[in-house]
Amino acid sequence: MIQPNYGRLTGLVAATFTPFQHDGAINIARIPPMVDYLIEQQIRGLYVLGSTGEGVSLTTDQRKQVAAAFVAATQGRIPVIVQVGCESLAAAADLAAHAQQIGADAVSAVSPVYFKPDTVESLVDSMAQIASAAPNLPFYYYHIPGATGLAHSPLAFLEAAKQRIATLRGIKFTSPAVQDYQACIESAGDEYEVLWGLDEMLLSGLTAGGTSAVGSTYNFAPAVYHHLMQAFEQDQTDEARLWQSRSQQLVRAFVPFGPRAAQKAIMAMIGQDCGPSRLPIRSLMPEAIEQLRSHLEEIGFFQWSHLAPISTSS
Amino acid sequence: MIQPNYGRLTGLVAATFTPFQHDGAINIARIPPMVDYLIEQQIRGLYVLGSTGEGVSLTTDQRKQVAAAFVAATQGRIPVIVQVGCESLAAAADLAAHAQQIGADAVSAVSPVYFKPDTVESLVDSMAQIASAAPNLPFYYYHIPGATGLAHSPLAFLEAAKQRIATLRGIKFTSPAVQDYQACIESAGDEYEVLWGLDEMLLSGLTAGGTSAVGSTYNFAPAVYHHLMQAFEQDQTDEARLWQSRSQQLVRAFVPFGPRAAQKAIMAMIGQDCGPSRLPIRSLMPEAIEQLRSHLEEIGFFQWSHLAPISTSS
Amino acid sequence: MIQPNYGRLTGLVAATFTPFQHDGAINIARIPPMVDYLIEQQIRGLYVLGSTGEGVSLTTDQRKQVAAAFVAATQGRIPVIVQVGCESLAAAADLAAHAQQIGADAVSAVSPVYFKPDTVESLVDSMAQIASAAPNLPFYYYHIPGATGLAHSPLAFLEAAKQRIATLRGIKFTSPAVQDYQACIESAGDEYEVLWGLDEMLLSGLTAGGTSAVGSTYNFAPAVYHHLMQAFEQDQTDEARLWQSRSQQLVRAFVPFGPRAAQKAIMAMIGQDCGPSRLPIRSLMPEAIEQLRSHLEEIGFFQWSHLAPISTSS
Amino acid sequence: MIQPNYGRLTGLVAATFTPFQHDGAINIARIPPMVDYLIEQQIRGLYVLGSTGEGVSLTTDQRKQVAAAFVAATQGRIPVIVQVGCESLAAAADLAAHAQQIGADAVSAVSPVYFKPDTVESLVDSMAQIASAAPNLPFYYYHIPGATGLAHSPLAFLEAAKQRIATLRGIKFTSPAVQDYQACIESAGDEYEVLWGLDEMLLSGLTAGGTSAVGSTYNFAPAVYHHLMQAFEQDQTDEARLWQSRSQQLVRAFVPFGPRAAQKAIMAMIGQDCGPSRLPIRSLMPEAIEQLRSHLEEIGFFQWSHLAPISTSS
Repeated sequence: MIQPNYGRLTGLVAATFTPFQHDGAINIARIPPMVDYLIEQQIRGLYVLGSTGEGVSLTTDQRKQVAAAFVAATQGRIPVIVQVGCESLAAAADLAAHAQQIGADAVSAVSPVYFKPDTVESLVDSMAQIASAAPNLPFYYYHIPGATGLAHSPLAFLEAAKQRIATLRGIKFTSPAVQDYQACIESAGDEYEVLWGLDEMLLSGLTAGGTSAVGSTYNFAPAVYHHLMQAFEQDQTDEARLWQSRSQQLVRAFVPFGPRAAQKAIMAMIGQDCGPSRLPIRSLMPEAIEQLRSHLEEIGFFQWSHLAPISTSS
Repeated sequence: MIQPNYGRLTGLVAATFTPFQHDGAINIARIPPMVDYLIEQQIRGLYVLGSTGEGVSLTTDQRKQVAAAFVAATQGRIPVIVQVGCESLAAAADLAAHAQQIGADAVSAVSPVYFKPDTVESLVDSMAQIASAAPNLPFYYYHIPGATGLAHSPLAFLEAAKQRIATLRGIKFTSPAVQDYQACIESAGDEYEVLWGLDEMLLSGLTAGGTSAVGSTYNFAPAVYHHLMQAFEQDQTDEARLWQSRSQQLVRAFVPFGPRAAQKAIMAMIGQDCGPSRLPIRSLMPEAIEQLRSHLEEIGFFQWSHLAPISTSS
Repeated sequence: MIQPNYGRLTGLVAATFTPFQHDGAINIARIPPMVDYLIEQQIRGLYVLGSTGEGVSLTTDQRKQVAAAFVAATQGRIPVIVQVGCESLAAAADLAAHAQQIGADAVSAVSPVYFKPDTVESLVDSMAQIASAAPNLPFYYYHIPGATGLAHSPLAFLEAAKQRIATLRGIKFTSPAVQDYQACIESAGDEYEVLWGLDEMLLSGLTAGGTSAVGSTYNFAPAVYHHLMQAFEQDQTDEARLWQSRSQQLVRAFVPFGPRAAQKAIMAMIGQDCGPSRLPIRSLMPEAIEQLRSHLEEIGFFQWSHLAPISTSS
Repeated sequence: MIQPNYGRLTGLVAATFTPFQHDGAINIARIPPMVDYLIEQQIRGLYVLGSTGEGVSLTTDQRKQVAAAFVAATQGRIPVIVQVGCESLAAAADLAAHAQQIGADAVSAVSPVYFKPDTVESLVDSMAQIASAAPNLPFYYYHIPGATGLAHSPLAFLEAAKQRIATLRGIKFTSPAVQDYQACIESAGDEYEVLWGLDEMLLSGLTAGGTSAVGSTYNFAPAVYHHLMQAFEQDQTDEARLWQSRSQQLVRAFVPFGPRAAQKAIMAMIGQDCGPSRLPIRSLMPEAIEQLRSHLEEIGFFQWSHLAPISTSS
């Protein structure tokens, strides 16, 4: 167990996008204004280089460059959690050590996918190898069975990891199995954290006891979730459900275009251009972007997505 | 659209077990006391011959026998929904016509699984063929992708089926995708119903707008869910979550024993013996039953599962 | 172990189509000419009401009607194996007893799919229940993991079933895992049979030791496989591979149209009209039929599919 | 199209193991004797850092170190193909450039898995990005859908890649879909190669037209496959099948112990110690190693696995 320098996470943590230039290089200059924008929108933490940030698609050097840029841009205003998981545990450990060195606030890791840990014990041992490379940083296991194909119980992981990983801080829980989430929350108590990871089911996560959530749509529709959380705290279930509905409309609007590329297109629409996608993900064609914008206008996205009106780059 | 004789479903609907004798025959005599017990426990409807009732494992004649016995035993005190889906749409239509003839209140059907409808349209057409055989009964599509492997959007089904199935009443929704559930609830409005189907996530379903739920554990732990629903209605989220936690502890206790056979064993423990399982499901061995009972005692199941103390058949 | 009245199967067994009328009724009158055609094309056995025959989609009465019609039409000229598997083991046992009563030569059964046997032992017990209802008929287990989702080893099944099912005759093996096929062939020895079930990989099956195969394309392209088997027996590998290539071109031509409905359309093209498909499978639209015919003409199907030229219903 | 310096591959290509020290570092010193052993056993090529070599589990620097060591140890005696695929296409391209620089004979790449190319075109573009970084080296796409989850047709890939990847040499085909393999072989003609990738189905691959195969068991049971290929070439099908049977017995013997760690244990038994596995794969415990050795003795592995008797490290 470790006491984070940021106390306990509450509210929205943005799973940040990684901005690219058209030649595939990192667009470092885009990071500081994006961080300022997120903090202005009352985002309480950054989860860097996860699925949204396409961490595993970058080289080790690029990952270090991006992590350092986010830490530097944030300047301690909100905690920065660096996702270091990848196929190579040795590379992940190297990234964890780097995260500690540059002053990140925490590290997190997803399991290898190509060779999957065959037991909970192997998974815990694998995560321990990574965590031990950043002995001063809180560690969050990134549970996302839809992407990893891992069937191990997150509760079993948590119970075993408490004994085995000195810096364990909790789990980033990205699965619709709310019963498992609640079980982890109960097992976590005050000493650990279980961050909710499905934006379109945030209300389920809160109801199960969650108090902080990590997601991609918090980047471009923060107001939706702030309203949702506030309504939930005030026992205004109908109001909370209304905001969750808007979140769901938003997700249904962009998913058919390919979720990763489409979300980058939305970032550009709200003035936070993150550049193109890179292979194996392809960017949206201009016509697709216009279709997507039109769908978003239909559902009122540009009216209700932000705390204050934003000027869109039409 | 059709106006059910029972108005709008609210509260708990029990997915009933089918009682067997040791030679595999239906134990019809066990049905009336089970129905009385369920009504006494404030169950508001019966969902007969679904997954819990092992409907697809019975012969057509056995299904008719069971459906008729439940309708007769219930005597209109609460609505009886008969699940008629199976691999053969012609057999399902025959069962639907029989359900209407014996005075059931509604029919429901799961999709064929061996040959899966390849489009939403094929699925709607398949369900329409079944529903049209019971033209006076409300029809619920049984959405359970974890068992059927069907990836079709339930919202797309609902929108298309509204136009195509005159007796459509709604969906029995058994999936953890709460965002899809809420979308169906919103599309359903006052004219249709979307029944929640995952007991261990009931609180998520209620929060998303659900008002009625169908499940197997409502048979043997009704008090847990009554308390949960009452707490939810009174905005006592912590209290609701506590009862959901008990539900989850219960599910975690019996799932390792094989969920179907284990639940039948629990029914016997609470004095509602449903007999053995049949192949391809095997009954629990006596030692497993004692282990299960011991786990249930540890979590206090026999104290909090019912509205009034029950005498257990130890 | 049982001695079949037909000795050991060799050569091609047609997985027969079930002919329908436009109202969904069985077109019994089409069965005798289809059987005559198949025997004329040197088919050595019939596998009735399997996946190709859409057995599980029919009612129990329809299945009995179809099985009886095939037995009657065949008049003992070649063996008739009746597939009786379905979700209900009791119904499957009833169908097995009926098959014996009408004079079928063997029975076969696929596992239930909705509720899957959880162990090899449960699977063997389930098959034993079916087989014991036809104590005078050889029994073939129908292994088709792509459709059932069962992961149990077919070799483990075979070893256990030898001890448990008195009438066991073998396995209809429909899986690309040739190593498992060869292991079953070796375990079978002279006492049991393992029928190969993937037409487009027949040469792999023969090379692994198979001597008989069951398939759907043997209905409409028998010459391809006769040539293939003959070439294989004469160690003309290049020639065998050429015929396998034609088989593969044929499969690639029709699969994009939906394999089940497309194959029925091909049957009509070669003068063996089996009528429309039924839900949940939809028949091909007229334009699709013409596209398919055009693809078949391009690959020369109408020249090389039969032992003698056939007149097509253009 | 590119003309490899090694002409056309024939015979067995060993998918090499990567030797580790107990601290997880690469055991470079073990590589030269292993290469000598493989060449002595008439292995015709090396496929380095594929699934067997745990390529994706190494850091980029470790991969370069291993690739260079194999190239240096081989000294042009047989071709060395370096597998460079990983989650990051940029890292894969870097590894491809390095492979060219150190004098490797060819490169190969598996698709990213965490973010999967959504179309054949995206897959081709992704592979093109890698291949173009080694413009003088033949490129093989590594098709292994069981590990990647990619459903794209390998034939469609091959047809599209011919137009798009100047250095395309072929496919390493690791899938039991022999019909797809034969289609690729036919499309490849004399200009491209399609290497077979399933040891326990090698005879199926040869029968479909394959002339070269890449696999892990060729490292420790080369005689089995030499005999198999020789028998196949001489039309001795029964003899070829016998050797395939031994291959299958071998695979069935070690798979239950965890295939990757068990194969490393076998390498030690035949005097080619590759050290321990690393996380997420765990090494076999000593008792498991003894059990495995005992199983191998029972099937006669130490008698028939090699061209000449080997002294085992008992």
